Amino acid sequence: MSRFWSSLTHELRPYVPGEQPRMADLVKLNTNESPFGPSPRALEAIRVEAADTLRLYPDPQATALRTALAAYHRVRPEQVFVGNGSDEVLAHAFAALLKHEAPLLFPDITYSFYPVYCRLFGISHETVPLDEVMQIRVADYRRRAGAIILADPNAPTGIALSRRGIVALLEDHPDVPVVVDEAYVDFGAETAIPLVASHRNLLVVQTMSKSRALAGLRVGYAIGDADLIEALTRVKDSFNSYPLGRPAQAGAIAALEDEAYFQQSRVRVIEGRERLTRGLKQAGFEVLPSQANFVFARHPAHDGAALAAALRQQAVIVRHFAAARISDYLRITVGTDEQTDRLLSALSRILG
Amino acid sequence: MSRFWSSLTHELRPYVPGEQPRMADLVKLNTNESPFGPSPRALEAIRVEAADTLRLYPDPQATALRTALAAYHRVRPEQVFVGNGSDEVLAHAFAALLKHEAPLLFPDITYSFYPVYCRLFGISHETVPLDEVMQIRVADYRRRAGAIILADPNAPTGIALSRRGIVALLEDHPDVPVVVDEAYVDFGAETAIPLVASHRNLLVVQTMSKSRALAGLRVGYAIGDADLIEALTRVKDSFNSYPLGRPAQAGAIAALEDEAYFQQSRVRVIEGRERLTRGLKQAGFEVLPSQANFVFARHPAHDGAALAAALRQQAVIVRHFAAARISDYLRITVGTDEQTDRLLSALSRILG
Repeated sequence: MSRFWSSLTHELRPYVPGEQPRMADLVKLNTNESPFGPSPRALEAIRVEAADTLRLYPDPQATALRTALAAYHRVRPEQVFVGNGSDEVLAHAFAALLKHEAPLLFPDITYSFYPVYCRLFGISHETVPLDEVMQIRVADYRRRAGAIILADPNAPTGIALSRRGIVALLEDHPDVPVVVDEAYVDFGAETAIPLVASHRNLLVVQTMSKSRALAGLRVGYAIGDADLIEALTRVKDSFNSYPLGRPAQAGAIAALEDEAYFQQSRVRVIEGRERLTRGLKQAGFEVLPSQANFVFARHPAHDGAALAAALRQQAVIVRHFAAARISDYLRITVGTDEQTDRLLSALSRILG
Repeated sequence: MSRFWSSLTHELRPYVPGEQPRMADLVKLNTNESPFGPSPRALEAIRVEAADTLRLYPDPQATALRTALAAYHRVRPEQVFVGNGSDEVLAHAFAALLKHEAPLLFPDITYSFYPVYCRLFGISHETVPLDEVMQIRVADYRRRAGAIILADPNAPTGIALSRRGIVALLEDHPDVPVVVDEAYVDFGAETAIPLVASHRNLLVVQTMSKSRALAGLRVGYAIGDADLIEALTRVKDSFNSYPLGRPAQAGAIAALEDEAYFQQSRVRVIEGRERLTRGLKQAGFEVLPSQANFVFARHPAHDGAALAAALRQQAVIVRHFAAARISDYLRITVGTDEQTDRLLSALSRILG
């Protein structure tokens, strides 16, 4: 508390990211990173940028990257916005598109950064409960809404909404912006990007941090009608002209060009998820059906917080949320087979 | 204009950065980049980060970089904040510290992003005219103020305020935040960082884009009392947990460690500035006394916009601001001696 702070500063409740511990030989399954490294072509492109030209500002419009993303997703470059990780893209979307008189709607259980953005930007919001099997029920959103944001697959449940569900949501709400946060879409769900052509109110947000294994580089993007993208660009150009450095722009372009590597990695993560799910079920866990690179699971006889603490004792870090409805659960990232085996062994020792 | 936009989005007047043209053989003196590349040690550190570990998120607190900056500037790590370029640091400072009931004060002629931030965050502000020789007169700030921000050296004039002037300003306003934006301080002015120890209301902002030649990497930082830094951190953690990727954090640390390279580069820029100033004066220009890596100059017989356009015809790009009091001037970045010679030759052809 300080007399020098703006009143806003006092009101904030900052997001707390999963920890990034510096312990050796840790099985780190707490922040949904890829167990496999980035494309070697992305790494080479970053190395090439470590040159005299770093003295120059990057392209503030990231035209080459936006053009590459547009070609990849079969849209036009003016339908693409890029930012310093999808969190920054989301932040700009909250400011530019999601603040209206009627409340913003999102699920009661979802990415816990959403209410943080609401507080930062003074956005009134209402949460809509997931149903009893932790799914989004589109009919429950048929109420007064200034805008809607969903994560699909949802986090931390991992459960995806069907394409039919997204279409229904868009058709129920043609007059308000609908943001679909697809951070985890590449692990088995269906992207809503093809719906952008027919729905001017749809903004789809994706990231290079998960399926492209570039969490350390910070690149996210949004795809939507050019009118929505213009709103994001106006906010970005009022905040920071150059959000993406030269290594980030070049690395992201090269990652997009390496389709074979991308497909191989995501298939391996999906296989790893099935293996992890089987192991957890054998250990007595109830595992929600995940389309993400993590699973959300609870043990009927063990407290979530206690399990997370016990795993930590064994150098295995998973994420636990001390929040209503989900405090029994652990969110466990899909690791390598070896990491999964170490997690399952640790659980077997803990559960006895 | 769109029904999907937040009302804020309609109200913005985004900043327009200097262009980043893709023309070959251009003498690019429009965005105050360093004519010399970054430290080879910084480049090597970035290359090392192009590795499997990029799959992992960076340290959200950038502890190693903040510790290195603290050691370099003889403060404590909790007195250091880092961001995605100093523009992002400034944006967070506007939101966290500069919004109060009384107006924010800054000079009428200064970094043109300041009023853009005011509009983004709804900050009331008043501008205080520079005096007739384009200097900041501290006495003119003795009026009702919620906060104050100055660029020192000022942009685009290049003129620095004396240490005595900064102290006077701080002592006139002990109860409001004072931000000193030192993007250009390493080219001959005196930093206010030592005053942080005795002035809890002082925040100093610096960048690695200019004197460290890392504009393409995006690293800026602020130094101030831990209480001010906490305000910035609260806003940052409500906006984007991981603003600096792994290559940026590592490259910035290595750049700080290469003191010899840094000193050599900044001395060469200062020598280049004196050479450029002499050449411009010989060509009939009036040149303001610059402590920055650019000069601000006007020709008594030639219009600024026309000169900028004519230089462009000769593949020399400088910056012109179509703004009150300064539309006669050109802002010209200090380049290599060869670039300066090409600029002066082009001017000599234009002026005849």
